[in-house]
Amino acid sequence: MTDSFLLTDLYQLAMMQAYLEAGETDIAVFEFFVRKLPPGRNFLVAAGLDQVLDYLETLTVSEEDLSWLAGSGRFSPRLIDYLRGFRFTGEVAAMPEGTVFFPDEPILRLTAPLPEAQYVETRIVNLLQFETLIASKAARMRLAAGARTLVDFGLRRAHGSEAGLLAARAAYLAGFDASATVLAEKCFGVPAVGTMAHSFVQAHDSETAAFLSFARARPDNLTLLIDTYDTEEGARKVVRLAPNLRAEGIEIGAVRLDSGDLVALAVKVRQILDQGGLPAVRILASGGLDEHRIRALLTAGAPIDGFGIGTSLTTSADAPAFDCAYKLQEYAGLARRKRSAGKATWPGRKQVWRRFDADGRMAGDTISVAGDPQEGQPLLQPVMRNGRRLGPAPSLAESRDHAARQRAGLPEAMTALEDSRGYPVTIAPALRALAQEVDRRIDVLNARDA
Amino acid sequence: MTDSFLLTDLYQLAMMQAYLEAGETDIAVFEFFVRKLPPGRNFLVAAGLDQVLDYLETLTVSEEDLSWLAGSGRFSPRLIDYLRGFRFTGEVAAMPEGTVFFPDEPILRLTAPLPEAQYVETRIVNLLQFETLIASKAARMRLAAGARTLVDFGLRRAHGSEAGLLAARAAYLAGFDASATVLAEKCFGVPAVGTMAHSFVQAHDSETAAFLSFARARPDNLTLLIDTYDTEEGARKVVRLAPNLRAEGIEIGAVRLDSGDLVALAVKVRQILDQGGLPAVRILASGGLDEHRIRALLTAGAPIDGFGIGTSLTTSADAPAFDCAYKLQEYAGLARRKRSAGKATWPGRKQVWRRFDADGRMAGDTISVAGDPQEGQPLLQPVMRNGRRLGPAPSLAESRDHAARQRAGLPEAMTALEDSRGYPVTIAPALRALAQEVDRRIDVLNARDA
Repeated sequence: MTDSFLLTDLYQLAMMQAYLEAGETDIAVFEFFVRKLPPGRNFLVAAGLDQVLDYLETLTVSEEDLSWLAGSGRFSPRLIDYLRGFRFTGEVAAMPEGTVFFPDEPILRLTAPLPEAQYVETRIVNLLQFETLIASKAARMRLAAGARTLVDFGLRRAHGSEAGLLAARAAYLAGFDASATVLAEKCFGVPAVGTMAHSFVQAHDSETAAFLSFARARPDNLTLLIDTYDTEEGARKVVRLAPNLRAEGIEIGAVRLDSGDLVALAVKVRQILDQGGLPAVRILASGGLDEHRIRALLTAGAPIDGFGIGTSLTTSADAPAFDCAYKLQEYAGLARRKRSAGKATWPGRKQVWRRFDADGRMAGDTISVAGDPQEGQPLLQPVMRNGRRLGPAPSLAESRDHAARQRAGLPEAMTALEDSRGYPVTIAPALRALAQEVDRRIDVLNARDA
Repeated sequence: MTDSFLLTDLYQLAMMQAYLEAGETDIAVFEFFVRKLPPGRNFLVAAGLDQVLDYLETLTVSEEDLSWLAGSGRFSPRLIDYLRGFRFTGEVAAMPEGTVFFPDEPILRLTAPLPEAQYVETRIVNLLQFETLIASKAARMRLAAGARTLVDFGLRRAHGSEAGLLAARAAYLAGFDASATVLAEKCFGVPAVGTMAHSFVQAHDSETAAFLSFARARPDNLTLLIDTYDTEEGARKVVRLAPNLRAEGIEIGAVRLDSGDLVALAVKVRQILDQGGLPAVRILASGGLDEHRIRALLTAGAPIDGFGIGTSLTTSADAPAFDCAYKLQEYAGLARRKRSAGKATWPGRKQVWRRFDADGRMAGDTISVAGDPQEGQPLLQPVMRNGRRLGPAPSLAESRDHAARQRAGLPEAMTALEDSRGYPVTIAPALRALAQEVDRRIDVLNARDA
């Protein structure tokens, strides 16, 4: 259902028809970028490119959708004919997934005949903003958690099925260790892990009976949830159970705390476990956590070994959307620019160059027109031509490694969870000159138009 | 892909296996409810039931998923056997979609053998919370906008494809007039509407050329976007074009403003249009709007006839998730309760009764155990038995009418966009007594357990 050609804004089809009828089918260049950082953020992490390229490679109009469009009475026979056999024929350059980026920097540049380039806007933004949203949030959690385990628990609070699935992917890419979502393992190889729910404990006559039943059925990587009635009491039950389970060959791997004062409880539970001869049993925490809570818990010395994160990750709760856009930058060989109040854009085909200091840390970016080389590494790389990928996509593991290297290259100040306002992004003279040139042209045309 | 049986948390499968192996397959009752209102909210609007019932009716395990599960080495042959031919056999009672509700009130009660009732948690929460989130947000926008047109523009900023599609549905249900998402018309009959994008204007040599080209290709319900370069100048171009277009039989329906000071610009544009002989041309506004901005614009006297709302609607930006839960309330005939700090729940099978005043406005709710009738109307109604709907679902139009009547029945104070802390929800004595009884039982069992 959701891979239908109709998963788009009506105006894309309206404009497509208008372009076709006026013969406006020259090559257009669109770029996707974020206009500004959400409050408190220092950087963003690109993600979702693989889904965008899959989308572009497989884009077609089914017979059913074509009939629906024709039957709606809204579209011209010319449009319907054009859509029969429609496929994406353009090219794409993009930053690799996992790359750190900043406002105004295009992370994807798409070049195609105008009707195609226009039409794909809706889904490209839909995919790219969402995964980038989650990857950017997950990277902050990884910075806060250090080497501790991070698991995505977010599927139920995600905005629908695709959000849950892609959030698991984007979080893993950006440094999470695993996800509770089984389908993310099947589709993307994200390791699936799981514990138990309160309902499991409640369904049993006693907590001990629940622990025993679960341990015997699921002895591997055994994690027991101990806060259903009384967390410390739960930990003591774990200690009493452990020898019996060990006799059956079952080791308790971890306990999970999901409510209450996590610092005090984790300290107390660690004590109970250690005194009970279970120093190897890990403590996992969950329940309304985000990167700030993780940092606060660890700063307060909570002996927590891993975190399960749901809502704040899967909805990017502090910033559930970016101020982002996919904008026309060039058409029929001429650079273009939107000048709406507060939403003006830099025109033309652009590239982003990144400089590094002697330690290999990011030192500054320059945005210029694509043909104007600057100091540093160009970040946008060609990935698609004639509607086909130029090579196999990097594996998710490779993208995850790239994201880890990117985090390691962040200037120290930017690893803070608070706004460090530090990173220099420069607009090159050639790009400023192009903007002025476009403005002059628009002014002349508008004066003539008036 | 997203209707896979694997779209679940790993622990659901783990618990399912544990239940099966311990023979814990008695009847369980789970309820879905919201724990508390997001800040500034006065009420919530139930939505998503139709998708939940579709899910339950069609739930199966594909051969592919079954092979994957078996091949993962994580699950017992008993679980794999059980899943072969698995379907949902339980019953559901729920508040009709569009019903206004409050914290602690179950909007869905599911009764089924424990392994089934447990498994479906993830997707039920995923669907029900999301559509309820959007419907609750959309209802506020309808209260702010009065009779003015409201259109969902949110697909691109939605969290993936399903979120975009279901947001269009939930917003329409809760009082929106239309959506830009074409697929929502095909799937749900939500009227699709559309205007034009800045890129369309930019792709043309002049704004006038763009307007002409679009008008000729798409003469019906013609809306021109006039803020690409200069909004007032755009309005003047519309006035100059109108007579020529009229000569071709084309009427301009509306103009859209998408940036700048919308109060000042709407006043100015209205003036230009009126003085230009176009009093019937409507003014639509978009660009970062939410219910507070809508109310502020209208309070300031902006002559705006309709609003296009994207991000704030489709992500429920001020509250991108609810503190909600699907909790075990009864198992094997015994009421159950979670007592975790700050997350304790009311036990047992519950019903919500609503009283109305002489004007038909909502006067107060009582939550009690299902068999303890209270004054007023019971809100949860049986909708599914033996895994099959009890009757055809209400049409989306019927649910939309129901939602409109519910809004009309809100106490005056609750139509404010700010927190009115007004609505009385009472816990009946029988439910308090049941909670005490469950606590006593848990204490006895835990004492024996210790």
